[in-house]
Amino acid sequence: MEAYLDNSATTRCCEEAAQLVVKLLTEDYGNPSSLHNKGVIAENYMNDARKKIAKTLKVQEKEICFTSGGTESNNLAIIGVAEANKRSGKHVITTSIEHPSVSATMAYLEEHGYEVTYLPVDAYGVISLDDLKAAIRPDTILVSLMQVNNEIGAVEPIAEAGALIKQCNPQTLFHVDAIQSYGKMRIYPAKMHVDLLSVSGHKIHGPKGSGFLYIKDKTKIHPLLNGGGQQRGMRSGTENVPAIAGLGVAAERIYTGFEEKIDRMYTLREHFIEEVTKIPGVHVNGHTDRSNAPHIVSVSTEGVRAEVLLHALEDKEIYVSAGSACSSNKPSVSHTLKSIGLKPELLDATIRFSFCVETTEEEIDYAVKEMAALVPMLQKYTRH
Amino acid sequence: MEAYLDNSATTRCCEEAAQLVVKLLTEDYGNPSSLHNKGVIAENYMNDARKKIAKTLKVQEKEICFTSGGTESNNLAIIGVAEANKRSGKHVITTSIEHPSVSATMAYLEEHGYEVTYLPVDAYGVISLDDLKAAIRPDTILVSLMQVNNEIGAVEPIAEAGALIKQCNPQTLFHVDAIQSYGKMRIYPAKMHVDLLSVSGHKIHGPKGSGFLYIKDKTKIHPLLNGGGQQRGMRSGTENVPAIAGLGVAAERIYTGFEEKIDRMYTLREHFIEEVTKIPGVHVNGHTDRSNAPHIVSVSTEGVRAEVLLHALEDKEIYVSAGSACSSNKPSVSHTLKSIGLKPELLDATIRFSFCVETTEEEIDYAVKEMAALVPMLQKYTRH
Repeated sequence: MEAYLDNSATTRCCEEAAQLVVKLLTEDYGNPSSLHNKGVIAENYMNDARKKIAKTLKVQEKEICFTSGGTESNNLAIIGVAEANKRSGKHVITTSIEHPSVSATMAYLEEHGYEVTYLPVDAYGVISLDDLKAAIRPDTILVSLMQVNNEIGAVEPIAEAGALIKQCNPQTLFHVDAIQSYGKMRIYPAKMHVDLLSVSGHKIHGPKGSGFLYIKDKTKIHPLLNGGGQQRGMRSGTENVPAIAGLGVAAERIYTGFEEKIDRMYTLREHFIEEVTKIPGVHVNGHTDRSNAPHIVSVSTEGVRAEVLLHALEDKEIYVSAGSACSSNKPSVSHTLKSIGLKPELLDATIRFSFCVETTEEEIDYAVKEMAALVPMLQKYTRH
Repeated sequence: MEAYLDNSATTRCCEEAAQLVVKLLTEDYGNPSSLHNKGVIAENYMNDARKKIAKTLKVQEKEICFTSGGTESNNLAIIGVAEANKRSGKHVITTSIEHPSVSATMAYLEEHGYEVTYLPVDAYGVISLDDLKAAIRPDTILVSLMQVNNEIGAVEPIAEAGALIKQCNPQTLFHVDAIQSYGKMRIYPAKMHVDLLSVSGHKIHGPKGSGFLYIKDKTKIHPLLNGGGQQRGMRSGTENVPAIAGLGVAAERIYTGFEEKIDRMYTLREHFIEEVTKIPGVHVNGHTDRSNAPHIVSVSTEGVRAEVLLHALEDKEIYVSAGSACSSNKPSVSHTLKSIGLKPELLDATIRFSFCVETTEEEIDYAVKEMAALVPMLQKYTRH
């Protein structure tokens, strides 16, 4: 049997979204900027997707800006805000465990004269609100926090952080990288004092090449791409209507029957953790209870290199990631794992299992069974 | 009958590409950054597309950088080169008839301390090589020219410009916006001294949300999107494998049987121009012979506003653009039409017919017939 447990890298696009993509590629293929009917039809599909997405976040439709995906959303939020607000200050706050699309963008800001404060995290990957409070200054223009860490599934206290930020400095904008949390948690930006929120389509069974940035109305931000002025000037370029429409479908779908789905994923996670930690030398990183995200389990295995285990599991058609799959094949030391204080010998002995709403108990049991068979064998191998 | 003559706004995605998109969304949906087999399969699709595209341009595969489309390609080329070469100079040259994705990016550079020279064009929309030569300075870091103008189909002398640029200043990089020319002309960047070349997928029957920037090996350029370091660090973000694979198919397809296709389009264009100019008050802008692009006919009609004619044609299921459809519904005065010296009263009386390889003689004849019926009627209307 096959067990695809790499859903935090990418998910299978749902049939409904995929079929809509084909329809809009080959039938209703107009350019939304065209003044004739084919353009209007395309625009309607886009508006419909915007409406569906806005509803999941309880925000205004015009606050949804479609992008080519999570990386573009994060870059647009951070560079766009930094550029538009540099006269108010050049200080930015983030964490030490961000995804490269945030951390590399922060490095870009540093090269351009901005100062970046990196908040540490505890052993479970969670920031401290006291640290955040202490870091906010009069010249802090932006705080950017991920809601769910992509490697271990740690959940940051976004709502509390949002309230705190606005209390310390009402001018500071708050960006949330929700790429691993959208579709896994209820997110209400207005209530959480979030000004910008990044989402990727292909992490929620939507099409690759889709995503959006929620931009609170009247937020001071510059576009990243210049051109025809599409999307109220925030994102030029012919809109990727097929992907946008597919994303709308996927967003609506993922938040339907939501609570049951999440409860089911947590139950699977708890079951998996209980079973997998029975294998000698196997540890789970991050919180094992429901304060962690429901879909990510970070597993460190004493005496077995991540890549070896990954390929051994692959032979059994079990697909997982070594650390995070977002860094383009480059096996580099994980900032997240270092930040939570993982023992050095486990840094390259850590793999990630990530589930989706379609993950079954059979897949989980199969993965545990194969882990139980493989790990002792591979550990023995290493010792020789 | 229906006549979709707005192919320069967007084209219908070909079946083969669309079917591949669905397959990669729902079956081979891996993330190319994943180390396991599903990642490898995705990477292979991407490499195959890269190979197909490189072949059409006779360039190296590693010189193809996939983007989300033409606008991103143009922004990446211009901002990326400006940023990476600012220590060598801050002077850039372009034309007065560029697409907004170039002209707005030039305006962005001007706001950031760069100096931009805008070359004028003649009555047919073509620049003068003497003007270009006179504009090149020791501190000129970039020349950006479109190969085919999107509104009137004027063809710029790219090969001659390339040779001239490298002769005047070997350090100056040469970017070509080939969004309207790729698939309509043979383009060989190496031979033409082109360092960067922008292409959009949805203009050549590929998927929306696809495109690439050809970047000559060793060209000094910074990325626009920071993150996981995909595509040799030039374009971070999970690759849109379905769209990329679809683009590969579309690129190979458009250059198969190429000369016959283009000859057929020119024959259609000539036939259309001959017939449509028989209608009193109808003029064609740009060259009417084969020195113009094969797929664009810019038509000005005395005494009939473009929008009125566009919607009258729409009623007959004939789809065209008013000027250019790339500027997001905003009816603004066309820089191209002003630059070729079009009479002021014709500026908002100009529509664009644009063909594709699938355009038939029946569609052309139908469009001419309806124009012949509509134009005198609408002219009469205006006079009252």
